[in-house]
Amino acid sequence: MSDSSKPALATDAVLKPSVEMSADAAKVSGIEFDSYKDNITAADLVDGMSNMGFQASSLGKACNIINEMIKWEGVNETTGEPAKCTIFLGYTSNLISSGLRSTLKYLVKNKMVSAIVTTAGGIEEDLIKCLAPTYLGEFSLPGGQLREKGLNRIGNLLVPNDNYCKFEEWIVPILDKMLEEQEEAAAIAAEKKETNDADSGVWWTPSKMIDRLGKEIDNEDSVLYWAHKNQIPIFCPALTDGSIGDMLFFHTFKASPKQLRLDIVADIRKINSMAMAATKAGMIILGGGIIKHHICNACLMRNGADYAVYINTGQEFDGSDAGARPDEAISWGKIRTDAQHVKIYADVTLVFPLIVAATFARKENK
Amino acid sequence: MSDSSKPALATDAVLKPSVEMSADAAKVSGIEFDSYKDNITAADLVDGMSNMGFQASSLGKACNIINEMIKWEGVNETTGEPAKCTIFLGYTSNLISSGLRSTLKYLVKNKMVSAIVTTAGGIEEDLIKCLAPTYLGEFSLPGGQLREKGLNRIGNLLVPNDNYCKFEEWIVPILDKMLEEQEEAAAIAAEKKETNDADSGVWWTPSKMIDRLGKEIDNEDSVLYWAHKNQIPIFCPALTDGSIGDMLFFHTFKASPKQLRLDIVADIRKINSMAMAATKAGMIILGGGIIKHHICNACLMRNGADYAVYINTGQEFDGSDAGARPDEAISWGKIRTDAQHVKIYADVTLVFPLIVAATFARKENK
Amino acid sequence: MSDSSKPALATDAVLKPSVEMSADAAKVSGIEFDSYKDNITAADLVDGMSNMGFQASSLGKACNIINEMIKWEGVNETTGEPAKCTIFLGYTSNLISSGLRSTLKYLVKNKMVSAIVTTAGGIEEDLIKCLAPTYLGEFSLPGGQLREKGLNRIGNLLVPNDNYCKFEEWIVPILDKMLEEQEEAAAIAAEKKETNDADSGVWWTPSKMIDRLGKEIDNEDSVLYWAHKNQIPIFCPALTDGSIGDMLFFHTFKASPKQLRLDIVADIRKINSMAMAATKAGMIILGGGIIKHHICNACLMRNGADYAVYINTGQEFDGSDAGARPDEAISWGKIRTDAQHVKIYADVTLVFPLIVAATFARKENK
Amino acid sequence: MSDSSKPALATDAVLKPSVEMSADAAKVSGIEFDSYKDNITAADLVDGMSNMGFQASSLGKACNIINEMIKWEGVNETTGEPAKCTIFLGYTSNLISSGLRSTLKYLVKNKMVSAIVTTAGGIEEDLIKCLAPTYLGEFSLPGGQLREKGLNRIGNLLVPNDNYCKFEEWIVPILDKMLEEQEEAAAIAAEKKETNDADSGVWWTPSKMIDRLGKEIDNEDSVLYWAHKNQIPIFCPALTDGSIGDMLFFHTFKASPKQLRLDIVADIRKINSMAMAATKAGMIILGGGIIKHHICNACLMRNGADYAVYINTGQEFDGSDAGARPDEAISWGKIRTDAQHVKIYADVTLVFPLIVAATFARKENK
Repeated sequence: MSDSSKPALATDAVLKPSVEMSADAAKVSGIEFDSYKDNITAADLVDGMSNMGFQASSLGKACNIINEMIKWEGVNETTGEPAKCTIFLGYTSNLISSGLRSTLKYLVKNKMVSAIVTTAGGIEEDLIKCLAPTYLGEFSLPGGQLREKGLNRIGNLLVPNDNYCKFEEWIVPILDKMLEEQEEAAAIAAEKKETNDADSGVWWTPSKMIDRLGKEIDNEDSVLYWAHKNQIPIFCPALTDGSIGDMLFFHTFKASPKQLRLDIVADIRKINSMAMAATKAGMIILGGGIIKHHICNACLMRNGADYAVYINTGQEFDGSDAGARPDEAISWGKIRTDAQHVKIYADVTLVFPLIVAATFARKENK
Repeated sequence: MSDSSKPALATDAVLKPSVEMSADAAKVSGIEFDSYKDNITAADLVDGMSNMGFQASSLGKACNIINEMIKWEGVNETTGEPAKCTIFLGYTSNLISSGLRSTLKYLVKNKMVSAIVTTAGGIEEDLIKCLAPTYLGEFSLPGGQLREKGLNRIGNLLVPNDNYCKFEEWIVPILDKMLEEQEEAAAIAAEKKETNDADSGVWWTPSKMIDRLGKEIDNEDSVLYWAHKNQIPIFCPALTDGSIGDMLFFHTFKASPKQLRLDIVADIRKINSMAMAATKAGMIILGGGIIKHHICNACLMRNGADYAVYINTGQEFDGSDAGARPDEAISWGKIRTDAQHVKIYADVTLVFPLIVAATFARKENK
Repeated sequence: MSDSSKPALATDAVLKPSVEMSADAAKVSGIEFDSYKDNITAADLVDGMSNMGFQASSLGKACNIINEMIKWEGVNETTGEPAKCTIFLGYTSNLISSGLRSTLKYLVKNKMVSAIVTTAGGIEEDLIKCLAPTYLGEFSLPGGQLREKGLNRIGNLLVPNDNYCKFEEWIVPILDKMLEEQEEAAAIAAEKKETNDADSGVWWTPSKMIDRLGKEIDNEDSVLYWAHKNQIPIFCPALTDGSIGDMLFFHTFKASPKQLRLDIVADIRKINSMAMAATKAGMIILGGGIIKHHICNACLMRNGADYAVYINTGQEFDGSDAGARPDEAISWGKIRTDAQHVKIYADVTLVFPLIVAATFARKENK
Repeated sequence: MSDSSKPALATDAVLKPSVEMSADAAKVSGIEFDSYKDNITAADLVDGMSNMGFQASSLGKACNIINEMIKWEGVNETTGEPAKCTIFLGYTSNLISSGLRSTLKYLVKNKMVSAIVTTAGGIEEDLIKCLAPTYLGEFSLPGGQLREKGLNRIGNLLVPNDNYCKFEEWIVPILDKMLEEQEEAAAIAAEKKETNDADSGVWWTPSKMIDRLGKEIDNEDSVLYWAHKNQIPIFCPALTDGSIGDMLFFHTFKASPKQLRLDIVADIRKINSMAMAATKAGMIILGGGIIKHHICNACLMRNGADYAVYINTGQEFDGSDAGARPDEAISWGKIRTDAQHVKIYADVTLVFPLIVAATFARKENK
């Protein structure tokens, strides 16, 4: 290679010409803070982030999709009546433990969502918070010392174990009453030989129990209270997987030889039927695991959701459903090929307040 | 600052003296490949990785802990009989979709674990694989094109949708039979007014249904088959959250007005009782979500597991249970303060084969 | 276990009593959107997120720390003059490619930071954006097709390769001039036998070259322009690792037998001296890699920074410096033991606009 | 919806037929541990993992690609002589701190790689380990207590600060000598008016300094020693970003008014020229940040590498180069469109020992 001439191999590679960009290609841009005299609103901030790239753009897209879910109006083909988008909201239990609970309550109180899927903790922590507070802690607090003090850690939160004792006191009489009702209904059904009939009324299911707990708690800070009030069903197929399960376990000894029963078949029928009846369906899924899969699976019954917003920290490389991108759900028919969808890679507490500020709680949307 | 003298502030900070390390402090070391004439065994590799630091050391620790679980022998305090460690194995459904299934089968076939917790997909994919194969694909295959072809993507795997059609054909007669049996038992129980009694035998639960499916599949490649054969219970509280749920949903129309029922209360009693009865308890949890929480929660019933190995890609910063370190479970009493525990941050398929090679399948352990 | 009595082992574990929480323990709380009539400001949103837990609380803490950096006033011990906190800002190149560039420019234009560390791309992309725009794309656009079109992908951004051709045209005359100046100075220094003297003026360093480029670009959108204008040094030890390196490589052929030189020893002296001279030192580090380590290392020269805010997506489990928590830097003396510090686990574009809105750009701070 | 008929919308979606898979589509499979009488070798394990899916398949692919790099033989077009693949190995400093150092040394000692790119820590920790050991610790050890003891934490490793004191003692005389040589050469060059000529010999560069340190350390455990011995260049553009930088900083005071100089322009020319001269080029990149970008950028000079293996824990969602998939590098021309490439998402210490066992150290390859 002569030292006085440019190395052609390299310059050809480095200086390869490019095609003309189309005139409507979106240019990257940002926020000019100098042009705001007053404090910028969260909604304006989101607007300014939309063309920033990376996850800021995903956030902007999520807000656009949710705003479309909110605004959509159509006609139900079967009934001929005006229809709105059926919005399935999913969240993991830690979000109810966090201060995001008031934001979730806001959505349910104001009938902004149609159905909820959460895990056992997402049910019981909502109730327990009506009995005693959860505290801020640190991720690094040593577990052994906490156990000694009876302080349970959830990330950087602390829940005193006494809260669970209070929960037991609160729930046991309700379980007693539920058992009583179960047995009464069972006796009637047995009489009619309708023990396992779909509408026999004998059967507690997770969603029925959750509705009952929402009624019993009777507290305006509670998501369950408003869900009961506004008849927004909350699904939780594995309702036994948490403190409620502990209480049900203990109750089996108290109730013996009788036993409370929670049937999950009736609930899968209920959520799937809701998805099938939806004229338009949107999913807002905060976190991963069963709450994500369960909503997606329900939407498969209608050949896919029309809108999908995922927010979680999962990654696809391990092949988990938790980390799967919306595009994987499209292959299954859980999201429609022509749906609007986005995944934001983030801890939900960082972005969902911003999203709600720019969508459900945006003045222009009210 | 004079230019000819060293800057004391900086040198004091940079050259701060350190304490003497204790004589038994472990030095970082690695593998000397030059000293192996033949191909190194997986077990030797793991041994060599133990003092490497980072996740290699966590892998080494996980193998040590599992080897202790395997070797532990004691006496059951209640029965006075010799006891082994009760090992709870949890895995997410994607691992059954992957080729790790044969490794999991190996553990169950050889009675190396005591109980299993998995999700719906972890049940049905094991069965479906007996009917038709799963294929390798790519993470980047576009969802819309796959849906058109009826190919469902799980990470970099592909499952033709025909597999699910075959599954429906296989399972419907079994569901019919299960309904029949339910109704027969219900009639007898109604007669005796024992409809909801703990031992009435009327009630299908997820674990009973899974055992039945394992019996029906009758295939030596199947985890469920061996679990049935070896009487290793498989728990799956949200068994409706997947293809089995779809089939149960469809079946409610076929069976109407009757309906199959799956009670989850009896199963929480069953798994919790197992944990309480364990003389020593170990957890091997592959992945996050409900399978992780469910095993930990069961071990709370005995004031914590004695051994815990987590392998997943979750992170704690979002406060999710999926990403929580063992130390968080200690604060809850789900792992004992003095337990041996480790979390490996990795896709399970990368490390579990290595772990099994260095533990359960290690010649020295046989 | 008798069936009519509660299982004591389990109830003792589940219902373990807890210590009393101290009266000033912070309770988890959230945002009550119903109480805002108008659109909530970003600053109020951040305030409301502070007690939410998880990363929302980390965001709140980061804002508190930055506000303290901004407000701190003291006296320089050596000079006796009033002093402000020396703020080291680090960012990776992708952030300059993104729309966050205008936020970073805002900080430099308004003299809100004292020094910057970035990578080669963080320099050249700022300049290139003055010549031609960057566009929004998708993470999933296939690389082969993009290469054919000459479109370079950075996450979900696209940079037409023509931009780099324009950059070459712009920079080559500057490199020629720099070489000329180098040779003139070298001739004088050789005369005086001061070729390698600290103040010989012969030596280009990364920071000197960057300052020159900022002067030459003469464009108010540019971070480099304002850094030059406001005499805020920008450090980039590996300035050759990018397009500037390509241009310097090509230039070695053009300039042969002469060669431009970039000395990195003088720059390490410059940044370390700045850290040592700081009365109070804060770090705001956006992203990982060398920009993170370089600022921390400089602060070691003063026995640690007083304030530290990290924002990145790295994890500690692989032992990388990129993913290390502030607490690791404390062990090295790079952050003081009594410093205020926080790490936010997030893509910077999601949170830094919010942070700037609640700190540097907050009306109350102006 | 009639209750006795199947819901057609749902069954159509769930039971959508699929295309026939092509006969050569790879089926997912795993390892049958029961079929191994002896302990399975690491190489066999990797073979068995290749069709497992998820990252196990990526690991298998990485081994295939590396084995192709090893076996490739061709003819250099310019010289007409037989050629082998030029392998660029990159690694971050933490890997040298870990026990993986002996594996890296193995590759260099046996001339299995052609060039190396690392960061400052990747240089100095290799030298320091010849002076004193690094120890195993825990990720959770509190930073303040460690600082008090003078123990520096790198993930779950500990380096006593005395090691750095020893390093200072070792390196200062070498820096003195290097300065002396610089000044002698500068005097001669000044005489000839060739101060900045490409071949003037005056200029220390990072790679020249590293080679010299490798010569001086004279220790068979050292990567640098073998790199010097085998004339394998090690590039480190930001060599000042670490303890060596601290020592150079201190040395500027000692040497004043003279100053050691490290020119990075000559090194970018050297690595780029190597890439251009390569008949075939492969990249093995362990970790992210500058070491990843630098190798990719060099390979752009030849219009892309032919083989690429990335191993790191970075994610693409934040638009960082560290987390970018190989496909992003293809858009830039850094990897060829028809290249074989793979990224393994993992901590390097977990998988690289396995990879080396199945490739470089595999008996069949020797």
